[in-house]
Amino acid sequence: MIVLGSTGSIGVNALHIAKVHGLHVEGLCAGSNVALLNEQIKAFNPKFVVIGEATLAHQVVHPNVWVGEEGIARMLEASQSALVVNALVGFLGLKPTLKAQSLGKKVALANKESLVAAGAFLDTRSIVPIDSEHFGLWYLLSCRPMKRMCITASGGAFRDTPLDQLPHMRPEDALKHPNWSMGKKITIDSASMVNKLFELLEAQWLFTCKAYDAFIETKSIIHALIDFEDGSSTAHIAGTSMQLPIAFALLGEVKEAVLPSVDLTQVGSLEFRPIDPARYPVWELKNALLEAPKLGAVVNAANEAMMAHFLAERCSIVGMAKGIVKAFEAFEGQAPQSLEDVFALDKDVRAFCKNLY
Amino acid sequence: MIVLGSTGSIGVNALHIAKVHGLHVEGLCAGSNVALLNEQIKAFNPKFVVIGEATLAHQVVHPNVWVGEEGIARMLEASQSALVVNALVGFLGLKPTLKAQSLGKKVALANKESLVAAGAFLDTRSIVPIDSEHFGLWYLLSCRPMKRMCITASGGAFRDTPLDQLPHMRPEDALKHPNWSMGKKITIDSASMVNKLFELLEAQWLFTCKAYDAFIETKSIIHALIDFEDGSSTAHIAGTSMQLPIAFALLGEVKEAVLPSVDLTQVGSLEFRPIDPARYPVWELKNALLEAPKLGAVVNAANEAMMAHFLAERCSIVGMAKGIVKAFEAFEGQAPQSLEDVFALDKDVRAFCKNLY
Repeated sequence: MIVLGSTGSIGVNALHIAKVHGLHVEGLCAGSNVALLNEQIKAFNPKFVVIGEATLAHQVVHPNVWVGEEGIARMLEASQSALVVNALVGFLGLKPTLKAQSLGKKVALANKESLVAAGAFLDTRSIVPIDSEHFGLWYLLSCRPMKRMCITASGGAFRDTPLDQLPHMRPEDALKHPNWSMGKKITIDSASMVNKLFELLEAQWLFTCKAYDAFIETKSIIHALIDFEDGSSTAHIAGTSMQLPIAFALLGEVKEAVLPSVDLTQVGSLEFRPIDPARYPVWELKNALLEAPKLGAVVNAANEAMMAHFLAERCSIVGMAKGIVKAFEAFEGQAPQSLEDVFALDKDVRAFCKNLY
Repeated sequence: MIVLGSTGSIGVNALHIAKVHGLHVEGLCAGSNVALLNEQIKAFNPKFVVIGEATLAHQVVHPNVWVGEEGIARMLEASQSALVVNALVGFLGLKPTLKAQSLGKKVALANKESLVAAGAFLDTRSIVPIDSEHFGLWYLLSCRPMKRMCITASGGAFRDTPLDQLPHMRPEDALKHPNWSMGKKITIDSASMVNKLFELLEAQWLFTCKAYDAFIETKSIIHALIDFEDGSSTAHIAGTSMQLPIAFALLGEVKEAVLPSVDLTQVGSLEFRPIDPARYPVWELKNALLEAPKLGAVVNAANEAMMAHFLAERCSIVGMAKGIVKAFEAFEGQAPQSLEDVFALDKDVRAFCKNLY
């Protein structure tokens, strides 16, 4: 490839990628940073070199140095490379873009002035933008190898309750969900973080990924994220209404508006927190449960039985969570092997939990 | 379709979607909310009705009311519907899920306990999850009709400068970019918001969408978003390094890590602001420029010429921006019709701007 603007930050990064992935660098062009250009010549041994400032040409350590705009055109004509990285700054980058296109070369374009000034007269299909924003847009349209699926939690009714007051919270307090208007059970499951534990387990049954995790996003605007192998993540953003998932589930596909789009400038800010096992004791079970997902039958039965204790005010929300952990530890070796096992285990776990209070 | 748990929040939302889209409701099942169930019977005229509480059956206004778990099984067997919305709460939702699957019906599943307790024994391929998180994950894997592409701005060096101090800011102040380490020109273009104006124009040349916009995300972690017709948005998240877009541009596809994934719990919070034309006068040009994108040649030339004034301290950053607006207004009628026009216009606009200071 050819790198125009090799000593700027984009050029330096492009050469880094070239080195790591063993890409051949056929030509380099720099403006005036001769010291760095000479280092790059040593490292990449390019066939062609162009320097912007004619007066500096004699300082460039290369047998064949061309100069300026004309030098770039000459290098492009002489080159075999199919790819030109154009990281020149300003309007002067337009002519090299045009030249590269006229020679049938693909342009990796960081020189945004090319498109800004003459987008109408370029073949945009042979341009790959080097810009984090356009890369982001392009990325959102594509599908890549995944590393981790991540879902968010609101943190539930006791998200901001001082830890020492948690044991004194009553069922009616647990029903005050900060973001979602939902049924009683799921609202309490949110306060205890059982709901998120369940959703991770569900995700593991529904999808195929290497890892699953969750964290708190206090406004429930970002619902899910996927971390990709390359280091990008994508997030799904929508208002706190179930009509969207329901519409897709019932209709298969949806082309018109179900909800208004979220306006993040109206939202103003988002806050992220890890899920703290001190506040949500069931979170201690996460890894063990995801490794032995059939034990979901235990956690579910324990949750329903312990919730009855909590609703009858026989235990606090902390006691409820600790009862679930206890049941998990007691039945950890009894993963169900059949549906019959699931129903039998459900009864046994409920009996175990009933005796806790 | 059949709706199990029709009087809960999921059930009510599902019936809303059914009404809006004219889906046939063949059966309803509620726990104990007879008043709402009777309203739903009136509105949807279902063939089958099941009530959880046997003692309430006589209050249900329907010629043929079945009761409880057994009633649900009977309704599922008798029904023609291919889709069952299971919004029952708790472990008691598992048997209806199993029954529906054994009858070859698709299950739109809000009863998460089915998967949690017995995921290993269900056919997850015929389950569509009704949950905002799993919907989010599924959505991130798919491609949908788009409404708007949106990119983010850091806000640049003067993002937090009191407006009345803006005229006194010097070139060296403009070079202090809050998030990115970049070249001189693009750093000043960030401080003036010209960079984001350029990027919107670029996006319009590179992609095909109905609308383009930008807003400030102060940490440059979210780079781009797409708003979809249905009301969902997706966001691209990555560290502030150009290596990712460069790697994709040079390599075509990337399967290993280029950057570490962003950990939002480490980031802690994100802040979003609209782009205020009082701080960034060039933003006034946005709509006019996107409607007449060939005038990018004018804005680019004016920006380069006005930046020379700013760097020589002949004008403030505000004066620079206002000069760009002036040039746009002066040359608005002269959209270039050819590449030759672009180069001629570039000269004329520079001459115009040179005379401003």
